[in-house]
Amino acid sequence: MRNLDFSITIVGLGLIGGSYAMALRELNPKNLWAIDVNEESIQYAEVKGIIDKGYIDANIPLKQSDIVIISLYPLDAVKFIKNNIGNFKKGAIITDVSGIKERIVKEVEVFIPDYLDFVAGHPMAGREASGIGYASKDIFKNANYIITPTDKNKKENINIIKKLAYDIGCKNVIEVTPELHDKYVAYTSGVPHIIAASLMNSDSFDNEKSYFVGGSFRDATRVALINSSLWTELFVLNKENIVRELEEFQNNLAELKEAVKNEDTIGMKKLFDKAGKKRSELK
Amino acid sequence: MRNLDFSITIVGLGLIGGSYAMALRELNPKNLWAIDVNEESIQYAEVKGIIDKGYIDANIPLKQSDIVIISLYPLDAVKFIKNNIGNFKKGAIITDVSGIKERIVKEVEVFIPDYLDFVAGHPMAGREASGIGYASKDIFKNANYIITPTDKNKKENINIIKKLAYDIGCKNVIEVTPELHDKYVAYTSGVPHIIAASLMNSDSFDNEKSYFVGGSFRDATRVALINSSLWTELFVLNKENIVRELEEFQNNLAELKEAVKNEDTIGMKKLFDKAGKKRSELK
Repeated sequence: MRNLDFSITIVGLGLIGGSYAMALRELNPKNLWAIDVNEESIQYAEVKGIIDKGYIDANIPLKQSDIVIISLYPLDAVKFIKNNIGNFKKGAIITDVSGIKERIVKEVEVFIPDYLDFVAGHPMAGREASGIGYASKDIFKNANYIITPTDKNKKENINIIKKLAYDIGCKNVIEVTPELHDKYVAYTSGVPHIIAASLMNSDSFDNEKSYFVGGSFRDATRVALINSSLWTELFVLNKENIVRELEEFQNNLAELKEAVKNEDTIGMKKLFDKAGKKRSELK
Repeated sequence: MRNLDFSITIVGLGLIGGSYAMALRELNPKNLWAIDVNEESIQYAEVKGIIDKGYIDANIPLKQSDIVIISLYPLDAVKFIKNNIGNFKKGAIITDVSGIKERIVKEVEVFIPDYLDFVAGHPMAGREASGIGYASKDIFKNANYIITPTDKNKKENINIIKKLAYDIGCKNVIEVTPELHDKYVAYTSGVPHIIAASLMNSDSFDNEKSYFVGGSFRDATRVALINSSLWTELFVLNKENIVRELEEFQNNLAELKEAVKNEDTIGMKKLFDKAGKKRSELK
């Protein structure tokens, strides 16, 4: 039985693109194609049966695809859409997966024709690894999927992308403006990544100390195993929000440090209790 | 068969004391007693069969105990030993479990008689919860156990405490000076706890944003559910190390922030790559 009466193309067979393809495979779409500049990734995906067929020439699958999922770095995603703007099928829905939304949405809006619909998205899923070799359909299980529609998007197309997100296993699909998305993820994702890297980069770190490492350090630094090129781009594109959220964090850290320095036990306890209460309320 | 030919008393039936008792229970010691000021904790431990018998009056079990494990807050541990100094059995080994060592060891050294041996210790185990109700023998499984012996400790007694640590399931038992212990844990445990609290205390946090929370935020803030009284005491007692390690972290964070601010992609990528390499080397 065909569950998905669409021909779908994934652009970019990396960790997310590969995982997306594997998850879509389960939904049995009409066609499942992929585009990648890397012949090896295409072969891997074809041999493993993750896709029906892969292409280096974008033109071939694009002109027959109802849905195109761009899984490239943010600026490459915009470039890809722009460079291929004449190749998409009329009425196609284009979506992306990148961790920055305002800039992408604004840039694409400038040149996208009326007969195409770009519904921007961001599955909050990932791993401390990159490449299709680490891809898994399970990374979407119970994840949150953010979409950032605008007035220009057709309601029915928004619903198709939302349904797709639920169908690949996401727990919540949340609609929010591109601006709020970028503001929120700066705090919930950008700052924790910068913290993890900064804590690892301490001169105090050496492997002799690994016996003194408990869960708190291990957890706080897990995402230091970062895809540095991707995150560097994400941070530059979300600079204002990242810097503002970092400064808020720096202020809170400085306040706690002062309390320690001054042996202000009442102040310290109050700050820890506030943090504990907020953490316990986190869904 | 008796595996442990000792009578052991646990002082303080909290999370760690309770867990220690449960783990020792498996080793079938000659006697397993506990001391607590809280009648309910004693009853709980007796009814659950975690201990043979519990006492509010410390004098009774102490005078017959070969090993006494003090599971109180750091300053309370010192106070307990001092107030009961005449009650211990001659030749007894006293140990503790607290996350600060230099101050404890120095204070106890002042008043401890030659016929008692205080071998200070710190099992790197815990939970985001407190009280015997959350105790489990499994918290020591694969944990690291730090001991901080001094010249005054008898070699055979150090070995008994080390063997006990392995027997309750710890993976590594590491000997280090009290001074180095405090320096190391400030970085590996103190700073991550302060980071977790500071990140939660951001004004940017509200529960609406929980849909934007992925693993990085969840992991970085896990230990914000802190025992605020205990940690406030630990931070005050380890103030110099904590402040120094926090400042090192602040410097690394500021460096990354500047790179973001200046869109210094080369500098940013270099810092992320350095952090990733160090994290991948963490055992």
